[in-house]
Amino acid sequence: MSRNAIHAFSKRFLSTPTPTTTITVKSTPSKAHHHVELPSSSFPKGYLLTGVHCGIKKNTSVMDLGIIISTSEKPTSAAACFTRNAFKAAPVIVSDDILKQNVGRASAIVVNSGCANAVTGKQGMEDAWTMVRETDALLPARANQNNQTLVMSTGVIGQTLPISKIVAGIRSQSSTAGTRSLGSDFSAWERAAKAFMTTDTFPKLRSRVFTMKGKEFRIAGMDKGAGMIHPDMGPASTQLHATLLGCILTDAAVSPRSLQSALTYAVDRSFNSISVDGEMSTNDTIIALANGAAAVDAKEIDEQTDKEAYEVFKNELTEFAIDLAKLVVRDGEGATKFVTVTVKGANAYSDAHRVASRISTSALVKTALYGEDANWGRILSATGSVPLSPATVLDPTKVSVSFVPADGSSSLSVLVDGEPEKVDEDRAKEILSNEEFEVVVDLGTGGNETARYWTCDFSYEYVQINGDYRS
Amino acid sequence: MSRNAIHAFSKRFLSTPTPTTTITVKSTPSKAHHHVELPSSSFPKGYLLTGVHCGIKKNTSVMDLGIIISTSEKPTSAAACFTRNAFKAAPVIVSDDILKQNVGRASAIVVNSGCANAVTGKQGMEDAWTMVRETDALLPARANQNNQTLVMSTGVIGQTLPISKIVAGIRSQSSTAGTRSLGSDFSAWERAAKAFMTTDTFPKLRSRVFTMKGKEFRIAGMDKGAGMIHPDMGPASTQLHATLLGCILTDAAVSPRSLQSALTYAVDRSFNSISVDGEMSTNDTIIALANGAAAVDAKEIDEQTDKEAYEVFKNELTEFAIDLAKLVVRDGEGATKFVTVTVKGANAYSDAHRVASRISTSALVKTALYGEDANWGRILSATGSVPLSPATVLDPTKVSVSFVPADGSSSLSVLVDGEPEKVDEDRAKEILSNEEFEVVVDLGTGGNETARYWTCDFSYEYVQINGDYRS
Repeated sequence: MSRNAIHAFSKRFLSTPTPTTTITVKSTPSKAHHHVELPSSSFPKGYLLTGVHCGIKKNTSVMDLGIIISTSEKPTSAAACFTRNAFKAAPVIVSDDILKQNVGRASAIVVNSGCANAVTGKQGMEDAWTMVRETDALLPARANQNNQTLVMSTGVIGQTLPISKIVAGIRSQSSTAGTRSLGSDFSAWERAAKAFMTTDTFPKLRSRVFTMKGKEFRIAGMDKGAGMIHPDMGPASTQLHATLLGCILTDAAVSPRSLQSALTYAVDRSFNSISVDGEMSTNDTIIALANGAAAVDAKEIDEQTDKEAYEVFKNELTEFAIDLAKLVVRDGEGATKFVTVTVKGANAYSDAHRVASRISTSALVKTALYGEDANWGRILSATGSVPLSPATVLDPTKVSVSFVPADGSSSLSVLVDGEPEKVDEDRAKEILSNEEFEVVVDLGTGGNETARYWTCDFSYEYVQINGDYRS
Repeated sequence: MSRNAIHAFSKRFLSTPTPTTTITVKSTPSKAHHHVELPSSSFPKGYLLTGVHCGIKKNTSVMDLGIIISTSEKPTSAAACFTRNAFKAAPVIVSDDILKQNVGRASAIVVNSGCANAVTGKQGMEDAWTMVRETDALLPARANQNNQTLVMSTGVIGQTLPISKIVAGIRSQSSTAGTRSLGSDFSAWERAAKAFMTTDTFPKLRSRVFTMKGKEFRIAGMDKGAGMIHPDMGPASTQLHATLLGCILTDAAVSPRSLQSALTYAVDRSFNSISVDGEMSTNDTIIALANGAAAVDAKEIDEQTDKEAYEVFKNELTEFAIDLAKLVVRDGEGATKFVTVTVKGANAYSDAHRVASRISTSALVKTALYGEDANWGRILSATGSVPLSPATVLDPTKVSVSFVPADGSSSLSVLVDGEPEKVDEDRAKEILSNEEFEVVVDLGTGGNETARYWTCDFSYEYVQINGDYRS
């Protein structure tokens, strides 16, 4: 229990003599090993990054401001998916506005953690535009140097940004400043990833190299999020509070229109398929930049004119987005399990996705996962509670449920064609005591659509972290 | 921590040396005072009830079988709402079938706890019909004495009923049996209410007297449920796992058709407006009986022919159903708070209801309630995440949030027309430290539709109870 939490409990108990009890719980395992050093050669060309401490957060040793700049001489394509929450935070409105004005072009990203700039009225909008303008000034001189920066904020809502500190932080990166730390090596990418963090326990950074038309390209990105995770994001939609943020950068050349359509596809199968607590945040934003810096002569890939290359890019982007999204689930607040929920045998992808989402967000399923209990009854009950399209008709005598261990050993069927199996409880315990495993639900409708969701368990620590967030 | 829970944790720690930590938590307050003795004169005439221990549960001092019989000489009207879960437990299929066969007539209810008779195949169907037949045999001789009993089961799923024990239990109530305990006084009603209990910490029984057309009528009922509570029930719908059960009995005379329509209306505003954990159970069932025993000459009330009396009855039934439903929230697994969520200013009732439901099921809102934190940001975020009908357009600058104490003292505005207020944190703590208070969200769309929801908080005990249910 953190000192803060103890303090908060003490306060409560001093004012009201609430009877208390003591419980022993599993410690949340360390997630630090998910942060690894990546080879500099795997990072896309043509980007400069940094993360600095500008003073939004009290602790001077943590980053709270991140800057990403495309130095490519070509126009950089930009796309974004925002949450569908009805409320819009200032940075979301501003980024959406810039993307529309520029018809899918932008060259920089500025992000701050510690304050979400949400429910901050006119002042919040002014502050977001100030962040854009100040970051624009860091860009190499080009024909159009205005409104080239997309902005993201995460943290506490209802408070205005300490904008003068942020401005000073951005200006420290101008090329004449002695404190400039923008770079392109691993440590620069790592600093930027750290600037995204709020309740995250490790910076979330990944990179990969892929081949398209016989040439090598690179993709890298970072994200943040540990609670309030159950995004539902679409292009050019919007909202107001802070949690899932990410950016994906590539040195491939992709047309703005195709970058948006590939990102929308990828986000549906990655960030829109994870759940920590079933909450859709008001600031959720994923941004993609494609700067074409891999080769001087590269023509922009477009879905209409080069379908084959587009498909390669879309699939690479999707796999990469899934990698990044999984890191968020692994770092889920209080999570002790990382569980893949696979729903197959549906007649429509949306039906399979809806069932997987319902299972992944069920408090009863998630507490059973924490308790390492192969409780197929709760899984079945969650499955049956989802309204499905007329295409997928559930027949209880066709539904099967099994648990699949991550180590490749044999899976355990607990329900086959609606009939409960005589479950080997020792084997069930063996599989469920692992940090990672898969739950497979076969709807048995004869269809072959499959959806995959990633979720974590609901632990005492989740209650502790969220019952005491503001303390 | 219960001995069982300690045992389960020990087992886990012996097999894997998981590091543990100790946390101090509020004890869940006792709910026993919600069970009170009611005057026998407030119970409807013409019903005999009992609850017995027949041996489904191991502990011989607890009831696990309840029987309710209408002794009225008039035909008894019956109506029911079942959950909309896609899976159907045997008792749900059978009760639905009987109601259809008899066109809304039935004279008895048999209920067991300890086993849900769900996912039990053909054997489960046979067992449910056996319970019906055996209870039919207890009824006074009438023209039609077959299939007059509705059946409900709650408890563990995937196990067949110990049907011979249940049959013996029912037969012990035949008038020739020396162990007959059917009665009509408070203790008989109390025994029946106790037979419904599973994880409930107190029997849930209420009664009231009301006046219609200058005459007195009585209504009484009981329900059970503490977890897996977030029902979505409609008439003649169905499912398969066990949790929210209730029955409402009156000595008014109401036509079958009008009893069903009044019950559907009442359930929407009561049992469909409560949430403990956002789970929709597969066995949720509410049954109403109206036996007309209050007066010999009473004609059946009907919506078409006697609108005024029908409206009186419908409103009394709704208020009564709300009283019963609230008891379930008060007994929510691990709950330390009872919170009313009122959403007003919508243009459609369904929009207000959807927002109230989302706030009431949000894990972040519920952990904040546990932490006694006036976290309007989470409330706003949940509000914004709900897809609404075109009738209700959310404008962030019109939304207001306040906390209203249950003791009649002044309320606390935390957000007014989208602007965060300077919150008096001491006053906020004062209101939220109470067991009971109200959260009011005014959507400010200019509409005047209001929905009310009742919810509880998410505590450490919730995780403990549900992470360890089968142990």
